[in-house]
Amino acid sequence: MQSEYLGALDIGGTKIVASIAGRDGPLARVTAPTPKSGPRRALGDQCLALLEQACRQCGIQPGDLARVGVASCGPFLHVDGDIELVAPNICGGQGGAADLPNDWTSVPLQSVLRERHADAVIENDCVSALIAERALGAVQDEPNCVYVTWSTGVGFGLCVDGRVLHGKNGNAGHAGHLLMSESSDALCGCGNRGDLEGLISGRNIAAIGGRPAPELFDAARRGEEPARSIAAGAARWFGRALYNLTAALDVSVFVAGGSVWANHGDWLGPLAQREIASRFPALTEGVTIVPAGLEKWVADIGAFCLVMPDDWIAHWRETQPWLKA
Amino acid sequence: MQSEYLGALDIGGTKIVASIAGRDGPLARVTAPTPKSGPRRALGDQCLALLEQACRQCGIQPGDLARVGVASCGPFLHVDGDIELVAPNICGGQGGAADLPNDWTSVPLQSVLRERHADAVIENDCVSALIAERALGAVQDEPNCVYVTWSTGVGFGLCVDGRVLHGKNGNAGHAGHLLMSESSDALCGCGNRGDLEGLISGRNIAAIGGRPAPELFDAARRGEEPARSIAAGAARWFGRALYNLTAALDVSVFVAGGSVWANHGDWLGPLAQREIASRFPALTEGVTIVPAGLEKWVADIGAFCLVMPDDWIAHWRETQPWLKA
Repeated sequence: MQSEYLGALDIGGTKIVASIAGRDGPLARVTAPTPKSGPRRALGDQCLALLEQACRQCGIQPGDLARVGVASCGPFLHVDGDIELVAPNICGGQGGAADLPNDWTSVPLQSVLRERHADAVIENDCVSALIAERALGAVQDEPNCVYVTWSTGVGFGLCVDGRVLHGKNGNAGHAGHLLMSESSDALCGCGNRGDLEGLISGRNIAAIGGRPAPELFDAARRGEEPARSIAAGAARWFGRALYNLTAALDVSVFVAGGSVWANHGDWLGPLAQREIASRFPALTEGVTIVPAGLEKWVADIGAFCLVMPDDWIAHWRETQPWLKA
Repeated sequence: MQSEYLGALDIGGTKIVASIAGRDGPLARVTAPTPKSGPRRALGDQCLALLEQACRQCGIQPGDLARVGVASCGPFLHVDGDIELVAPNICGGQGGAADLPNDWTSVPLQSVLRERHADAVIENDCVSALIAERALGAVQDEPNCVYVTWSTGVGFGLCVDGRVLHGKNGNAGHAGHLLMSESSDALCGCGNRGDLEGLISGRNIAAIGGRPAPELFDAARRGEEPARSIAAGAARWFGRALYNLTAALDVSVFVAGGSVWANHGDWLGPLAQREIASRFPALTEGVTIVPAGLEKWVADIGAFCLVMPDDWIAHWRETQPWLKA
C-alpha cells in the first residue's frame, strides 16, 4: 500500500522549511537557518534532519514518506547528473555581494537527499511556485503562463505549450537577470548593472529612495514624491520585462506574487499592464497580469505540488487545506 | 503505398517559394511575388498555385504530395483554430512602416491551404529554421538551443528541454522585439523604439551609418571608422540579447544565420560571445554561438523538415542533397 505522506522542503538563502502533508492537508512544519559554514554537505544534512524532525512530529519515519518535493533558491548546476546549488547568497566562493563564512563554489543537494529519499524532485523555487499556481492557484491548467515574484529579488517560472521549462541546468526563468537598461548603474547580486533585479528589487529601491523598500512603497501609495516616481518607474521596468517575455515566449498570462506585488500590485499592476499593452498588438493583445492565488503559502505548497498525485490535487483544489493549516 | 513526395512553402514579405522533394532530395522550385492586393485570400491562393506549378514540373499532381510544410513570416494569429498572418510587411491594416496597397488586418493561410492540403504544417520561418538546424544542420539533436537570424530583421526559434516552443499563437521567438535600450530612438517596424531589431537590423544600421548595411559592414571589416564602431556596437547589442535569452531559458548553444551573420559572423561573433561570457558564470558558462549549417538553404529545407519522415532525415543527413540541388 502506498504511503499517505508527502515531504516538502523549501530552501532559501536565509532559512530552510520542512513540511509533511497527508491527503487532507499539511500536518507539520519545522524550520532552521540555512547552514553557511562547516562541511559542504551541511545544507543537505540540515534538510535531512529537518525532514526527520517534521516526520517525528507526525509520528512517522522519513522512510514512510511516499515522495519528497524540494523548492530551492538557485541557480543550479548539474554535476554528474546531480543538482548542486551555486546560489550566490549561500556559496561564498561564488563571489556574490554577501559576506559569507565559506569558500564553497557549490553545495551538493540531490546526492545528499538521495541517501534517504531516492526520488526527491528538486526545482527552482519560482518553477515550483509556477507549478503550484497551475495546480492549485490562479492559472489552473493554463498552457502558456509565467509566474513572477517581486520582493527582495525578482524571479520567474515559465510554462509554454503546457510544459514547464527547465533548461540545461534547471535554470530557465532567471529572467530577473535580463539586461534592461544600458545606462543605469543599479547593481544586481549577480554582478550585472541595469538588469531587472538590479533596477527594481527591494534592495535597489531602498538604495535609490534612501529608506527601506516597504516604507518607500507605502509612501508612494500615499502619493508622496519622490517615492511615487521611484515606485512607478519600477513598475514600468517590471512591465517592460513582462512585455519582453511576452515577445519571446508568446504567453497569455502572468501570475504575480512576492511581497511587493502582494502589498502594492493593486496600483502597480495597471502601470505594468500599460507597458505591455502599449506594444505591438499582434504580440501583446489579451495578455494579462493576475495576482498569485497561493501567495504566502506558495513556497510550502509548491514543493508538495512537485510530487503530489493527481487525486490529491483534485481534492486540495476543492478543500484548500493550506488555508486552515 | 505512401507518396514519395513532400511539398514546401517559404512565405516571405517579398516572395513566396514552393518546392517539391523526393526521398533523394529537392526536385523542383518555383517562386512568385507575395500578393499584397486583391482578395484577402490572394496570398493563400498564390501558395496553392505555386505548389501546383512545382508539382507539374515533376509530373505529379498536388494530391500526390504526402504532406506539405510551410515556413512563413509572422506574427501569426489563431482564428477559430486556423493560422492567419498578421505580418506588418504584408497587411496594410496592421499599420506597419511599409506603404501597402491593402487594408488587411490579417490574411488567412491555414484555411485556404486546407482546401487542397488537409494537414499542412505551418510554422514561423525562424521556428522552421531551428527545426531544420536540429534535424540536418549545426545543432543536431541539441535539446537546449536557439536559432537566430540577423539580416534585414532579427528573428529567433527557441528549443528548451528538447521541445520547440510555439506559444499561444505560434509566435514564440519574436525576441527581435525585446526592449534593449531605454534611450535609443531607433525605430522598429513593430513601433518599438530601442528594441533589438530596431537597434541592429540592416535598416537601422544603414540609417545610422548613412550607407547601405552591406557596404557599412564591409567597411567595418576593413577597420574604417565610424563603420567599425557602429558594427561593433551592433554585435554587442546582439550579444546582450543572446545573454538575455540564456538567462531566461538556460540554453546551451545559439546557431546563427542571416546575411549579416553569414558574411561577418567570423569577426562579429567573438564580440557577441564576449557579451555573454562577461555575465554571471552560473548562468552563462559554456554557452556558445555557432554558425548555421544550412545557411542559404535553410528556408526551403526548413519547410521540408516540418513534415519529413525520420528515415528521410537520416538519409538527408548522410547525403546532404540540398548542396546538389
